[in-house]
Amino acid sequence: MIAEIITVGTELLLGQIVNTNAAFLSKELASLGIEVYHQITVGDNDERIKDTLEVATRRADIVILTGGLGPTKDDRTKMVLSNFLNIPLVLDRETEDKIISFHEESGLTMPENNQLQALVIEGSSILKNKTGMAVGMFIELNDITYVVLPGPPSELEPMFGEEVMPKLIERTLNQDIFKSKTLRFFGLTEAKLAEELDELIEKQTNPTIAIYAHEGDLSVRITANGSTNIQCDQFIDGIVKEIVYLVGDFHFGYGDKSLSEVVKDLLIENKLTITAAESLTGGAFLSSITQGSGASSICEGGMVTYSERTKKEMLGIDKKTIEDFGVVSSECAIEMAEKIKDKYDAKIGVSLTGVAGPGLLENKDIGTVWVGIAFDEKTPFAKEFHFPYQRSKNRNRSVLNALELIRRLILNLEIVDIIEKTEK
Amino acid sequence: MIAEIITVGTELLLGQIVNTNAAFLSKELASLGIEVYHQITVGDNDERIKDTLEVATRRADIVILTGGLGPTKDDRTKMVLSNFLNIPLVLDRETEDKIISFHEESGLTMPENNQLQALVIEGSSILKNKTGMAVGMFIELNDITYVVLPGPPSELEPMFGEEVMPKLIERTLNQDIFKSKTLRFFGLTEAKLAEELDELIEKQTNPTIAIYAHEGDLSVRITANGSTNIQCDQFIDGIVKEIVYLVGDFHFGYGDKSLSEVVKDLLIENKLTITAAESLTGGAFLSSITQGSGASSICEGGMVTYSERTKKEMLGIDKKTIEDFGVVSSECAIEMAEKIKDKYDAKIGVSLTGVAGPGLLENKDIGTVWVGIAFDEKTPFAKEFHFPYQRSKNRNRSVLNALELIRRLILNLEIVDIIEKTEK
Repeated sequence: MIAEIITVGTELLLGQIVNTNAAFLSKELASLGIEVYHQITVGDNDERIKDTLEVATRRADIVILTGGLGPTKDDRTKMVLSNFLNIPLVLDRETEDKIISFHEESGLTMPENNQLQALVIEGSSILKNKTGMAVGMFIELNDITYVVLPGPPSELEPMFGEEVMPKLIERTLNQDIFKSKTLRFFGLTEAKLAEELDELIEKQTNPTIAIYAHEGDLSVRITANGSTNIQCDQFIDGIVKEIVYLVGDFHFGYGDKSLSEVVKDLLIENKLTITAAESLTGGAFLSSITQGSGASSICEGGMVTYSERTKKEMLGIDKKTIEDFGVVSSECAIEMAEKIKDKYDAKIGVSLTGVAGPGLLENKDIGTVWVGIAFDEKTPFAKEFHFPYQRSKNRNRSVLNALELIRRLILNLEIVDIIEKTEK
Repeated sequence: MIAEIITVGTELLLGQIVNTNAAFLSKELASLGIEVYHQITVGDNDERIKDTLEVATRRADIVILTGGLGPTKDDRTKMVLSNFLNIPLVLDRETEDKIISFHEESGLTMPENNQLQALVIEGSSILKNKTGMAVGMFIELNDITYVVLPGPPSELEPMFGEEVMPKLIERTLNQDIFKSKTLRFFGLTEAKLAEELDELIEKQTNPTIAIYAHEGDLSVRITANGSTNIQCDQFIDGIVKEIVYLVGDFHFGYGDKSLSEVVKDLLIENKLTITAAESLTGGAFLSSITQGSGASSICEGGMVTYSERTKKEMLGIDKKTIEDFGVVSSECAIEMAEKIKDKYDAKIGVSLTGVAGPGLLENKDIGTVWVGIAFDEKTPFAKEFHFPYQRSKNRNRSVLNALELIRRLILNLEIVDIIEKTEK
């Protein structure tokens, strides 16, 4: 089965945004064994959208259109498709109600053209939008399937996963079943992970193994095809074992679950509470650990001590520690972790202090970061990092590495290169 | 002048990499006033590359091909173009020498097919590759310009900037200049902004006006064309005035600068310091205000008081306030803002308290949030919000709305629906 992806949007043709939707959809389709031969980007222009639809209809079984479903006059996708298929647009009451109640609840006045977002091609299956207003559509006509999706990735991705995938799986049912599982990794480079898995990937045809790099961590996606669900699971389980044998030390979780969610859930399971004193990260660690639901049972709060003064006056760091060692030091990091743990009466105290950049601090290089950890009754320690990035990425990596340290401590995994607190 | 971008690579069709080249090239071309109507991605397949070339040659003046110039069997771009144009490939001695000496110097053995990278279309202008082996080409034939570029962005981007841009500027010299400016907005929906600007957008042909929605805010991009830079600026300035007249109340900045950066810079300019006591946002406000460089001069730190206990014990909120009004209340928000301002000795104290979800709190709806502000000597106040989203977006909107309140206070703009502190 062949699919063609048409991404609509003048902002794509002006290079104002990068087309991540084409990559996302292609990857998802590949996991179902659906091939993509062409990805086309056109602007919000009736004639060119129509021409592109004509060509795609001639050469594909599934035509996926994304973008141009918003409430402005530029958003033409639905009107052009309606003309092209010669099927009228009708008002979808449920979507209209949702738009009306959104505006009522948020106290915003609803502009008249907002109704445009509630128009759908008559007879199409509605694809619900959990994260926005624009409604999607699934249309089957003359052996061609048309899928219409909103442009913003935050709306398109959940809609595709929850609403489109089940329908496409149904269409491909008399084919083999495709199933995949994603393993998440932190603490090694993409090149290193590729090297470790090279032999396995080379010899492997079913399941296939693919590596993906994200902002801060890596995924390995295993995709099996077989005649039954159980057969796919067996294929996948075998490969998971081999991968974990090779690089299990860096494997922190599965699927979409981020490192901070994994750590938050480990804290909940182990009835541990956590707090943090943050300097360079300015609240990003606490924000990340409290991002998921259930955070209130593991975190009562913490402090941002960005300046030297607040480290001393608010947190109670010894003046002498800072005079002797500076704030970017194992001594300061350890003392910050101990002090915040006591102050907030938590089982785990974390500290993050270092040089985010662009300026230097205490003559230490940009990217020099100390993470301090006071974990229950264990001897407090600190670990030094040197990140080669710019400010925002250095802050982000600091948070992720602090989370990873906590994960390893909870699971009793080895942590290397740490400096333990010594009595003065 | 119209260009068409053809990106070649099966890895793009499998979604293994995101097509940043199309965005890069489109943006560069737009800056020269060259319009792009279609971006096409095809795999490493002779027939489909040839078909795509045929269509592009019919509708564009400049055809840009990227990818497929490597040394492997999959790399087909040059061979297909050579067949399509009916011009043979010849060996480029300079490139061949470079490949040979690279292998000699690095001690690597040169694979035979590496010579493939030294083949060029006869008569084409060679585009040098400073960061890799594959050579690019610039070919002018029957009024069509073909530009052939390598796939890796680290090779394509410098080659385009240094080798292609000068040639294209020469070609477009007697054409108009294009220039654009982006205005940023917060506090109204995309539909509402579209309605307000509708008449203006309708009547406007030069400059053009386009609205874009981001996660949390909106942009309006104004694009003018004229014979000189000054003329473009005049066109743009006129429209900016009209837009600001219509929706200036929601206009917070220009270009890529986020709301948090705008507020941070306003604080720096006005020599104001800020702190926050965060409940539902768990550190996200402080993290956002300290994200950009220079933050140390405006923020010394702050507190995350997620639990009721830490609100009382760490921040010093009156037990009676919480008993009488709850933590999701104007009274608690105002007291939090005052207490944190005093504690951290800042000019501005901000508090964020509310129900992020998924659980309820004090029987208040998910999305109910109070932002408290104690601004210098002004009477402290709080403002209530009702966000209709899920946890993470509710937290995000809380931060953005707190930032917007501070921006309005600094600039003496009107703030409606606030509850001021009253003496007990």
